[in-house]
Amino acid sequence: MDLLFLGTSSGTPTRARNVTGLALLEDTGRGWHLVDCGEATQHQVLRTPLSLHELRAVFVTHVHGDHCYGLPGLLASAGMHGRKAPLHIVAPAGIEEWVRTTLRLTRVWLPFELHFHAAESLGEWRGGSLRVEAVALSHRVPCYGYRFSEARPDPRLNIDKLDRHGIPRGPLWGQLIRGTDVQYEGRLLRSDDYLIFDRPPRRVVVGGDNDRPELLTEACQGAQVLVHEATYTRAVANDARADFGHSTAAAVAAFAEQAGLAHLVLTHFSARYQADPKRSPSIEDIRAEAAALYRGRLFLAEDFARFHLGRDGELHRVEPDRRGDGHAP
Amino acid sequence: MDLLFLGTSSGTPTRARNVTGLALLEDTGRGWHLVDCGEATQHQVLRTPLSLHELRAVFVTHVHGDHCYGLPGLLASAGMHGRKAPLHIVAPAGIEEWVRTTLRLTRVWLPFELHFHAAESLGEWRGGSLRVEAVALSHRVPCYGYRFSEARPDPRLNIDKLDRHGIPRGPLWGQLIRGTDVQYEGRLLRSDDYLIFDRPPRRVVVGGDNDRPELLTEACQGAQVLVHEATYTRAVANDARADFGHSTAAAVAAFAEQAGLAHLVLTHFSARYQADPKRSPSIEDIRAEAAALYRGRLFLAEDFARFHLGRDGELHRVEPDRRGDGHAP
Repeated sequence: MDLLFLGTSSGTPTRARNVTGLALLEDTGRGWHLVDCGEATQHQVLRTPLSLHELRAVFVTHVHGDHCYGLPGLLASAGMHGRKAPLHIVAPAGIEEWVRTTLRLTRVWLPFELHFHAAESLGEWRGGSLRVEAVALSHRVPCYGYRFSEARPDPRLNIDKLDRHGIPRGPLWGQLIRGTDVQYEGRLLRSDDYLIFDRPPRRVVVGGDNDRPELLTEACQGAQVLVHEATYTRAVANDARADFGHSTAAAVAAFAEQAGLAHLVLTHFSARYQADPKRSPSIEDIRAEAAALYRGRLFLAEDFARFHLGRDGELHRVEPDRRGDGHAP
Repeated sequence: MDLLFLGTSSGTPTRARNVTGLALLEDTGRGWHLVDCGEATQHQVLRTPLSLHELRAVFVTHVHGDHCYGLPGLLASAGMHGRKAPLHIVAPAGIEEWVRTTLRLTRVWLPFELHFHAAESLGEWRGGSLRVEAVALSHRVPCYGYRFSEARPDPRLNIDKLDRHGIPRGPLWGQLIRGTDVQYEGRLLRSDDYLIFDRPPRRVVVGGDNDRPELLTEACQGAQVLVHEATYTRAVANDARADFGHSTAAAVAAFAEQAGLAHLVLTHFSARYQADPKRSPSIEDIRAEAAALYRGRLFLAEDFARFHLGRDGELHRVEPDRRGDGHAP
């Protein structure tokens, strides 16, 4: 599983960072999922190896424009490029109405189906090799985080059980190992009931905008990685001009430390934080504030930064496979 | 008057060209007008000297997403950066409903007013030093071109007339020369009635998507510059896969030749045209097709290309004053 950041700025784009978008790639290297789709996410995709044909689903955290204004253009471009496969969109109330209204008023006909799923009542959604659950967060508008779990980590057949249940070797076993539920002599055999998983699933929690990281406590159980906004440092958040509804680097770091998370990736930085550590406030202030409270492995996201989560549960940064010059829009 | 191209691709963005956006700058170097606002236009603006605070008006040619999907994000960013001045939006039916619905569903509150004007019944709209008229074009949806005319080219007072009409020298004359209509002894004195213009106004016609360039015949009278889409060459347009509702380079060039236009700027190129002249089809095919039929000065727009239209009516390309690296998103 890989994480590829497409946008890491809060509110407005900068010359170095686009507004929010995060690609989650499956191990096959083909199917991918998108969490949030700020304006110009499709432009960012052009600078990666990702294809709009292989996008399985979009998960929108909330209705603010810096998290969704790129959606109609991405859909329209996928259509113009001939996508036929249905696309799933998991989102809170308001997004489906907005997308459908936009497509109608701007006269877009898509050659593929959109399947909307309400974040409010998602339960468990399965796509590709992943199971996904939504977690309600605390922001100025209803906002959701998403937990992505590997559905079938290194499966092998439970041969003892298959034999005990009298299920004959052959094509049936092949279907079960590939994750397909099958009918046999009037019974439904569930694949998961006949598989043994030799390791814990990889699990990544991606927060939306959120001023109460502790709401992710349960979701973070068994997770190796938390991706969370850290819009401000404490000094700036205490400033009256700071927006409300967001987390400080300190608050997220303290939560991640308490939750025992092995890896924390911070993102969604206010545009006021400069890349140059000699300028103030700088992005390094965010790193320092978090590092003082968190002893796991800390990463600060950048546009086009790519991370690989291995089967061993270790996250490490990998060299991006950029197309073009790799600059943010 | 300057033209600064922010997007020159048709339909979808490419790594080198964004979707449509064109800035028209006033001579003061401050106020500017925007024609069309495809997705990521605000990102392109970040790479120019333009400020969202000094944008006077947006003119939308039609409802297709590659011409308007950047509008909500641009408005939201202008608001987050503290713009207070009202913004005028001239657009055909559908755009106001879409923008207002978008702002409502995505919970945007703008700290400035939006004044919408229907392209269908625009008459003459004045903003800054310009007069603007809309021209109905032919496309798959209602579409408008816009004619920008300098309102007061090098004005001087008609002193004979002022004296004949008994209007006393002093502050009144000052107001009239600056373009303000004034009340005097119960009469309304119109500035334009007391001014002499020593040269023809500069005039630029910007087409929208359009498959009948001849609809711009009247608008092009007295214009020094026509900016028009040339989405395809004839060879590609004859191909069954080509979209309808657009012009070929040949059709636009033939029209510009017949209309006696001094300068023609082509834009809105299909993404299939490669920058590399050794590849086929290449953008040079478009240039060659147009050049064979048009004897005026021909330009092919690129993102961030900037052109100056001088008081002498001559258009020439000027070095861009880019911020950042100048790459398209």
